[in-house]
Amino acid sequence: LSEKTSSSRRKPLRPAAASAGRPHARPSTIKDVARAAGVSAGTVSRVTSNNPTVQPHVRAQVLAAIKRLGYRPNAIAQSMRTAETKLIGCLVADLSNPLYSAIFKSAEAVLAAAGYTLLIASTEDNIEREVQLVEAFARRRVDGLMGVMSTETDPRLLQALEEANIPLLLMEREIDLNADGIATDHIGGMRQATDHLIALGHRRIALITGPITTRSGRDRVAGYRAAHEAASLAIDETLLRCESLATTFAFTETQRLLSMAAPPTAIIAGGNLMLAGVLRALNLLGRAVPRDVSVLSSGETELAELAAPPVTVIRWDLAAFGREAASLMLSRLQNPDGEPRKMVIPCELILRKSCAPPAK
Amino acid sequence: LSEKTSSSRRKPLRPAAASAGRPHARPSTIKDVARAAGVSAGTVSRVTSNNPTVQPHVRAQVLAAIKRLGYRPNAIAQSMRTAETKLIGCLVADLSNPLYSAIFKSAEAVLAAAGYTLLIASTEDNIEREVQLVEAFARRRVDGLMGVMSTETDPRLLQALEEANIPLLLMEREIDLNADGIATDHIGGMRQATDHLIALGHRRIALITGPITTRSGRDRVAGYRAAHEAASLAIDETLLRCESLATTFAFTETQRLLSMAAPPTAIIAGGNLMLAGVLRALNLLGRAVPRDVSVLSSGETELAELAAPPVTVIRWDLAAFGREAASLMLSRLQNPDGEPRKMVIPCELILRKSCAPPAK
Repeated sequence: LSEKTSSSRRKPLRPAAASAGRPHARPSTIKDVARAAGVSAGTVSRVTSNNPTVQPHVRAQVLAAIKRLGYRPNAIAQSMRTAETKLIGCLVADLSNPLYSAIFKSAEAVLAAAGYTLLIASTEDNIEREVQLVEAFARRRVDGLMGVMSTETDPRLLQALEEANIPLLLMEREIDLNADGIATDHIGGMRQATDHLIALGHRRIALITGPITTRSGRDRVAGYRAAHEAASLAIDETLLRCESLATTFAFTETQRLLSMAAPPTAIIAGGNLMLAGVLRALNLLGRAVPRDVSVLSSGETELAELAAPPVTVIRWDLAAFGREAASLMLSRLQNPDGEPRKMVIPCELILRKSCAPPAK
Repeated sequence: LSEKTSSSRRKPLRPAAASAGRPHARPSTIKDVARAAGVSAGTVSRVTSNNPTVQPHVRAQVLAAIKRLGYRPNAIAQSMRTAETKLIGCLVADLSNPLYSAIFKSAEAVLAAAGYTLLIASTEDNIEREVQLVEAFARRRVDGLMGVMSTETDPRLLQALEEANIPLLLMEREIDLNADGIATDHIGGMRQATDHLIALGHRRIALITGPITTRSGRDRVAGYRAAHEAASLAIDETLLRCESLATTFAFTETQRLLSMAAPPTAIIAGGNLMLAGVLRALNLLGRAVPRDVSVLSSGETELAELAAPPVTVIRWDLAAFGREAASLMLSRLQNPDGEPRKMVIPCELILRKSCAPPAK
C-alpha cells in the first residue's frame, strides 16, 4: 500500500508509543490552539475565518496561540486542493440497523452524484475498533468522515478524530469538536409521544432507550421529562430503563417492567430495534396490545407498520436525513474553514392502533 | 491521493480510452490464458497449482499459452507479500436489506479478528456505478473483493472484475470467473416450501421473486419447479412473477395475482424484502391470512416472526453465511492460486401460522 504522506495531513505519531519522547512531533490542531488560548474550537475557527463576532482581545489571544503553536488553519484546504481522494469514510455502530442503512443509502446517492464514493465500516460499538477505523480512514486520506460514533466522551476516540484532521460530520452525537452535526429531533419526538400517552390517561409510562451519555438517549429522556413536567406529573424513575438500544435489552426490560408491583400501562420503545424485543416479551407473557398495555415506538419500521395492531411511531424522514448529511459534507469540502453547522431533522407522531386509554 | 502502482497490480488502462492503440498494455489474466488455450479458467488454475487431474495434452496447451502471453500466475501473491492493505472491499446492491447487513456484520467480525477491515459500498443495482466501484477498490488496492453483484452477465462488470485482478468472492451469484463463491441453497429452500404448500392441498401457488438471470431468482424457480415435477403437477406459468426483489414489485404483483380469474391460493414471497409488499397488498384488499390466501416468505425477518399471524419462512443461517464468506476470503488471501471454492448454506423451513389448506 502506498503510504505517501504530506506534511499537512501526516498521521500524527501515536501518543503512547512515540510522542512521549517527542511531545511536539504532531502538527498543532485547532483544539491545541483553543486550549492554549483558553477558548473553544469554534472561536478559533471564527478567528481564522475572520468572523467579525469575535471580541478584539479574544482574537488577539487566539492569534498569539496560533503563532506560538505554528498552527496552520488551511491545512485541510491545502491538502484538499492537491490530494482529493473523492472518498468519504463512514463509521456506523450497527450495520444491521435498517434506519442507518436507509440514511446511508440516501446520503450515498447525493455523494455519488457529486463524484464521491461512500465507504462504510462497522464499529460494532467497539471503541478500539472505532479508533483503528478512524486512523485507517485518515491514512487512506478520505476527504471526509461521517458517522454515528459509539461514544461522545472516550478520550481515545476524541483524540483519533482530532488527529485525523479530516472534515467531520457527526450523526446523532454531540461531541466538542470542530465538526458539523446532524441529528433527529428526539426531544420533540419523545415529547409528542409522551404528551399523547398522558392525554390518553396514562400515568405510568415506561421508557426503554439508550444511555443518556449519548445524544439520542439523552434527548429522548429530555422529551419524556418535558412532557411530564408540562402536565405537572411526577416521574417514577424506576420506569426509565436507559442502558442500551439493543433488541435483547428491550426484551428483558419489558418482562421486568411488567412484573413490577405497579407495572406501567404504556411502554415506549425508544429505539427502532427495540420494538421487536418489546413485542416478543408481550407475546411471551400473553399480554394484548393495547388492551393490557399500550406500545409506542421511536422510528418507523415495516414491523411497526404491519404488526397487529399496527404500532404508533415517532417518525422522521430518513431520506431527508441522508440527503442533508451529504449536503453538509459537500459544503464542508468546499469550505473547510467555515463555521461548524448543526442541523436537526424534525419528528412527527404517526397514530396507529397500539395506544389506548389504560384499563381501569 | 497517492496512486503509486506496481507492475503486478497496476490498474489496466480503460479499453475504450487507451487500449485501442495499445492492445497489449495490460498484464495477461488467467482468462486470457484460458481463452488462448481453449480451456476454462479453473483448468488454468489447476495447471498453475500443479493439480494432477489435468490431462497431459491440456497441460501442454495451457503452459504454451502462459508462455506466449507472459502470464504470471503469482502476481497477486507477489503483490500481497509486498503491499497488503488489509482492506477488503465489499459491494452490495441494496444496503437497506437487513439480510445483507446481518451477513456483513458477521463477516466483518471474522475479518477484523484477522486484522482486515471490511469497507462496504452500495451499488444500488446500477451497473455503471458498480463498475466504477470495482475500479475504485482496485486503485485503492484492497486485498480482496466480495459482494452481491447486480448482474451475472453484463460484459462491463465482468471486464472490470477481471481487470481488477483481486481475489474475488461472489455472494449469491454465479459468474464465469476465477472466483470463490458462496450462496444460499435457494433450490432446496424453495423445494421444501413448495412441497409444504402442495402437501396442504394447494394447486395454484404463486411465486414472486427476482429475475432468473441471477442465481437467487433462478434457483428459487428451480426449486419451485422441482416440487411441482415431483408431485406430477403442471405449472401455470402466469403464477410466476420473476422480475425484481423489490418490496414495491411484490406489492403490485400480489394485487395483480389476486385479481386473476383463477387467483392463487398461496403466495410465496421469494425475497425477504418482498413480504412487506405482499402483506400491504393483502391488507389493502382486505384478504385474511391464511383463510383467504396462504403466505410464505424466503428469508427470516422480524416482520415474518412478529406479524399476525406469524409467517412461515425459508430460513438460513446468516451469521454462518457471513463467517464462511470471511473464511473463504481469508483462505484465498493465504493461497491466491488455489482452486476456486464454492460453498452452499443450507435452508430450513420454519412452520408458522400463515399457511393452511386452501378454502374449498
